[in-house]
Amino acid sequence: MTINIKNFLLSQSKKSKIGDFQDLEHIDGVAISAISANLYEENRDDLVLFYFRDAANYASVYTQSKIISENIKWNLSLKGNSIKALLINTRNANAFTGKLGLRGIIKIAEELSKKLTIKMAEDDEEKNFVNPNEILFGSTGTIGATFPTDKITRSIPSLVKKIKYTQTKYLWIKAALGIMTTDLHPKLAMEECKIGNSEVKIYGIAKGSGMIFPNMATTLGYVFTDADLPSGILKKLLKKNIETTFNAISCDGDTSTNDMVSFFATKKIKHAKITNVNDDKLKDFDKSLHSVLLNLAKRVAADGEGASKFITVNVFNAKTFYDAKKIAFSVANSPLVKTAIAGEDPNWGRIIMAIGKANVDLNLNKLAINFGNIKVIEKGQLFSNYEEVEVAEYMRGEKVDLTIDLNIGNKSFTAYTMDLTKKYIEINADYRS
Amino acid sequence: MTINIKNFLLSQSKKSKIGDFQDLEHIDGVAISAISANLYEENRDDLVLFYFRDAANYASVYTQSKIISENIKWNLSLKGNSIKALLINTRNANAFTGKLGLRGIIKIAEELSKKLTIKMAEDDEEKNFVNPNEILFGSTGTIGATFPTDKITRSIPSLVKKIKYTQTKYLWIKAALGIMTTDLHPKLAMEECKIGNSEVKIYGIAKGSGMIFPNMATTLGYVFTDADLPSGILKKLLKKNIETTFNAISCDGDTSTNDMVSFFATKKIKHAKITNVNDDKLKDFDKSLHSVLLNLAKRVAADGEGASKFITVNVFNAKTFYDAKKIAFSVANSPLVKTAIAGEDPNWGRIIMAIGKANVDLNLNKLAINFGNIKVIEKGQLFSNYEEVEVAEYMRGEKVDLTIDLNIGNKSFTAYTMDLTKKYIEINADYRS
Repeated sequence: MTINIKNFLLSQSKKSKIGDFQDLEHIDGVAISAISANLYEENRDDLVLFYFRDAANYASVYTQSKIISENIKWNLSLKGNSIKALLINTRNANAFTGKLGLRGIIKIAEELSKKLTIKMAEDDEEKNFVNPNEILFGSTGTIGATFPTDKITRSIPSLVKKIKYTQTKYLWIKAALGIMTTDLHPKLAMEECKIGNSEVKIYGIAKGSGMIFPNMATTLGYVFTDADLPSGILKKLLKKNIETTFNAISCDGDTSTNDMVSFFATKKIKHAKITNVNDDKLKDFDKSLHSVLLNLAKRVAADGEGASKFITVNVFNAKTFYDAKKIAFSVANSPLVKTAIAGEDPNWGRIIMAIGKANVDLNLNKLAINFGNIKVIEKGQLFSNYEEVEVAEYMRGEKVDLTIDLNIGNKSFTAYTMDLTKKYIEINADYRS
Repeated sequence: MTINIKNFLLSQSKKSKIGDFQDLEHIDGVAISAISANLYEENRDDLVLFYFRDAANYASVYTQSKIISENIKWNLSLKGNSIKALLINTRNANAFTGKLGLRGIIKIAEELSKKLTIKMAEDDEEKNFVNPNEILFGSTGTIGATFPTDKITRSIPSLVKKIKYTQTKYLWIKAALGIMTTDLHPKLAMEECKIGNSEVKIYGIAKGSGMIFPNMATTLGYVFTDADLPSGILKKLLKKNIETTFNAISCDGDTSTNDMVSFFATKKIKHAKITNVNDDKLKDFDKSLHSVLLNLAKRVAADGEGASKFITVNVFNAKTFYDAKKIAFSVANSPLVKTAIAGEDPNWGRIIMAIGKANVDLNLNKLAINFGNIKVIEKGQLFSNYEEVEVAEYMRGEKVDLTIDLNIGNKSFTAYTMDLTKKYIEINADYRS
């Protein structure tokens, strides 16, 4: 099926296991364009531009892989704290493409900066002059394939021509669709909140789908606010909130060369000046940012390749945050746990196995495990009233919550993942053809 | 299909991707019995006894999981350096079965020791008296299910009655079949070698199939020699050789609560006394032991659940052994690499991804990757004469060798694994039913 806005709206794929996504509307200072550069054979958008005419302060976090894509190298080389454009392409990761890949980015950055500068000259030449090094790049797709520099360069005039300065919910969906690879659902989230007395918006889109593990995998996440926050504050907010959101999801334990989550502030709303990330006036904003990031991250996990169920793994009362996280991901990444859940089999023994292999000191006599609200293990023993049929019934739902209470400390971590199905194999055994 | 010796021989499942297994014959000091205790619904052997009438020196290595099965706890509690029997059951792991599971072992150990003592009284009462704490236990199967103590206890008379003191190749195959769970092929290996001027034998059987990752997973491996080596030497030899054999295989990255590899010496062959593991007279034996362990370990990996291909991941010229191992397993455990291989897709970009996520410092300009003998990456670039069709053709074979040369040191590690197929999901989504 061709992925386009009409099909999408018809198919109502707005609904996911995580629930409907919210409608994003207009946010000042962001302009959007999404087109097809024919990077896929099929007719779908694959090139998305976010244009900040009046510049945006920004901060990014990137993959922790030792091998990073050319676009991430480019992004890391940029010295400024503000940016004028973000260009995202799908189908090609521009990773392990060597000098040719980097040269491609340089060429595209030059072409795009030129076109944006020319177009904006009608409006205000001085203000809208765009330098190549004011452009950020996101790429996702196959690693190692030759980067389609020419196809993208040729599409720039059309891309710039189609820039929309006023967004609608449809435009946001179009952008979220345009950055997808094997995702089935576009991922959007939003919050409205206050800084001091001023109302501000936080809008975000993301894509997932395979190679999703802490430090973000082929996850791209882009979050926009109209607040007026300096890049240093954005950076701190992002780092603080990423650990329990995008770094708390896992699809298959694989980590991409291209992960990237960026946060842009268009400075359009005037509010109390913020110079310290711990400023009380930022509390509401901080909480809302966490909601947007978590909402997007959950959507990425729920739409992991081949997923039929969304899995939440809560680990409570560990000695350290790190211990809780190790156990949560040992369970969330276990192929045997994930296939059991796919099979709706209440095989809690595999959860025991995954807890055991995490190499965290335990007191087995204190261990408790719940499936949803159903007690399965209590004080290290199968719960006396355990009824397998009850748990089996619970597992038929499309959301499975596992809660592991270690009862030896007070640190917690929650990981989000999906089940491992034949569909995952199907998608990945045959990804490029 | 019922797994029994006749069906097996008819189906010629002696052949595997690793090649035929060798025929094991008689080895002095080992007696074998394999029967059905009806632990499975179907009619197959599920209870296997190795009986050492004149005791055997032994050493074992066990799972590194923080949660270990009741039989492993029992084994760890034994203080002696020699043993009279090894009893292995399948279908039930006796893990997370609590006091009931441990009580089961105690009861079975008592019953078995009594029956062995009575039976052997005809022969030589003094010599053949068996204590419960001279019995070692191996268990494999579902975690958390009630341990079938009664079924096993009731089967002891028949088990003891059927002990054979002279082995044939069929008896060894029957034993190797009797310890299988979801394995498709029995796993046997042997070497003959010399200690000084005396010829000795090393025979081994193993089972695998899911939960296979370093520190051994639901792997059971039992190796027997007629050499006269003390338990301390056996322990050192086993520890030395396990790292590059059983600890070099991976199926799905999951680790079992029940892993166990034991090495038994029946002391039947008289040879030069060995008191030091570095004794030159032990070199040939050491090498042969490594061969037997590697041969068994490869068979376990090749027969990993759902495997259609056997994958060898060589990492050469790393700075440290640990770095080489980290990269080898990052590739060998990557679901995306393993699904690409299942799909016969030469998607080398995923190998790049898996190398990158291993968190080892690299010099990308020196990286080389081969598929079999075909150069794919050289000096960090796609090889100039790279022909995808050639690699695709290579991948159609049932063995895939990946060689990653880091060219930054002189340490190497080789990991063995299998591809990730729909069959794996099928087996594991529905293991218990």
